[in-house]
Amino acid sequence: MRLLLHEKSYARNRAALDAFGAALELLLIDDQGQIRLAGAPVSVDDAQPDAAWANPDTFFSGAGRPFMAAVLKSPRLRWMQSGAAGFDNPVFGRIVEKGASLTTSHGQAVGMADYVMWGVLDVLQDGPRRRAAQAAHEWARRPFREVAGTRWVIFGFGAIGQAVARRAQAFGAHVTGVRRNPAPEPCADAIATPSALPDVLPDADVWVLAAPATAETRHVADAAAFARMKPGSILVNVGRGALVDEPALLAALAAGRPAHAVLDVFETEPLPADSPFWDHPQVTLTPHASGMSAGNPVRNDATFLENLRRFLAGEPLQGVADPKDVLAGG
Amino acid sequence: MRLLLHEKSYARNRAALDAFGAALELLLIDDQGQIRLAGAPVSVDDAQPDAAWANPDTFFSGAGRPFMAAVLKSPRLRWMQSGAAGFDNPVFGRIVEKGASLTTSHGQAVGMADYVMWGVLDVLQDGPRRRAAQAAHEWARRPFREVAGTRWVIFGFGAIGQAVARRAQAFGAHVTGVRRNPAPEPCADAIATPSALPDVLPDADVWVLAAPATAETRHVADAAAFARMKPGSILVNVGRGALVDEPALLAALAAGRPAHAVLDVFETEPLPADSPFWDHPQVTLTPHASGMSAGNPVRNDATFLENLRRFLAGEPLQGVADPKDVLAGG
Repeated sequence: MRLLLHEKSYARNRAALDAFGAALELLLIDDQGQIRLAGAPVSVDDAQPDAAWANPDTFFSGAGRPFMAAVLKSPRLRWMQSGAAGFDNPVFGRIVEKGASLTTSHGQAVGMADYVMWGVLDVLQDGPRRRAAQAAHEWARRPFREVAGTRWVIFGFGAIGQAVARRAQAFGAHVTGVRRNPAPEPCADAIATPSALPDVLPDADVWVLAAPATAETRHVADAAAFARMKPGSILVNVGRGALVDEPALLAALAAGRPAHAVLDVFETEPLPADSPFWDHPQVTLTPHASGMSAGNPVRNDATFLENLRRFLAGEPLQGVADPKDVLAGG
Repeated sequence: MRLLLHEKSYARNRAALDAFGAALELLLIDDQGQIRLAGAPVSVDDAQPDAAWANPDTFFSGAGRPFMAAVLKSPRLRWMQSGAAGFDNPVFGRIVEKGASLTTSHGQAVGMADYVMWGVLDVLQDGPRRRAAQAAHEWARRPFREVAGTRWVIFGFGAIGQAVARRAQAFGAHVTGVRRNPAPEPCADAIATPSALPDVLPDADVWVLAAPATAETRHVADAAAFARMKPGSILVNVGRGALVDEPALLAALAAGRPAHAVLDVFETEPLPADSPFWDHPQVTLTPHASGMSAGNPVRNDATFLENLRRFLAGEPLQGVADPKDVLAGG
């Protein structure tokens, strides 16, 4: 079985990978995009991996294009592990069209949930005013809003949404998870299906978007949705920029519903320097970085190694994306 | 039974208090400090309450001094409910010396725990750098530290410490509670007694001070303690300023152990305008406001009403401070 992966991914997991012995032929790609088999250069056409491991080592280097070319050209491809949770890049659709399995990673849920709590707490506690008071040497005690008793609607209730829910519940929040499967979930006080979103939004103090971008989720946060939100409420988007109608959000912020938006993702990324979001006093803005916590590489490596063990043992893989969702993505 | 309370406290809880009927004689004090019994002015000497309710209505108005004078002069005083958790004000010692019970409130634990999580997350996620990047319209993805896997030492493991612990555990942190009672606690992974503090500090990523000021806790955070902390670690003080040796903390920050301090309380309050903490880049500073969450008044009123019911029914009060601790306080 031929596995295509970045040489840095191999170096980090050498002991675990070498333990598979002769069952595994490694195709190592470097930052310049050169692929090697047992040390000998191999062309993109000749690589022909059975499996591939796409992760930040391949996403964020010169390896990216040749890596995906070798994957898509391989007649033998049966599996690709992605280090990301989403699949709105069209390349993922081409992988499932080939009949290969796409498995996604949810290691970033941990850091993303931290990010959501940071963003919401900074609004409820009025962090900007506190920092301004500190800078002004001003001793003025002001009340703040607590999380306990707030109602959260978490749209997209997969690994990320549930990680947010567990944290918010520990603060005493009431959590409604929104997803297609209406079965109860221990970390949610209530589950609503997407069609019930309009019914739960009017009570939400916090609305978290943690869904992938699909044809169904596009612009779920639009003018009609914002009009149902409460004064003082908070929108958080850690899903994808396509979930939010951005001009509608700007108008909604002006109307105070929501009162604040914590935005990590945007319809156009990088966000253009002249976007009105940068200097908006009601916006906390970060550069698609909510998942960049230091614990991710460790968790993602473990996820891949477990799936590799399963693949070689003929066991079902974990985190297989539904091909219908992947094809509807983006 | 004569109860001394602020007229605003009465107005807010009128229905519940009136329901006690003739069992209760109300001494109402106004913002100017005038006490009235059934509408007629009464002197501080003649008020003679059996019980008193000290809360922000009395702490933060002209009622403060005459309220405490009436309490301390009363030969009949058996109980005072305080709206605060601490008892380092010497006046509390004089109340227990009279043989009266002092009950404290822990309603502020909820907001204080929110504050601690806000302060720690803002350091781990490098909030200042994110805000500077937003202000500069800079799209630069940077990794951040997650709470999962961090080790927290919470010195003072009462209502506040435990509220912090429950939240930190939901993020995947390992929590060691430090208190005199070595019995296990569900919200702690470990309990250590104060004498074991030097043993647990070297592993702490976060050290939270949530203890009252007593002779035993004074300057528990001193040069020797800081020298045991890790590079990159965080100190949070929501207890009392007296717990920290402030010159030693400044030297410790310069050495990077701890790397950051989140300080809500200080040895001198209000903090003098020329304190070096105000502009210190490794310090998050707030004006003794960590307990000022909007949910407090509701919870504190409920705590008082339940104790009043118990007092009139001859049942044991909740939250009675140990007279030994009160007398050692401050």
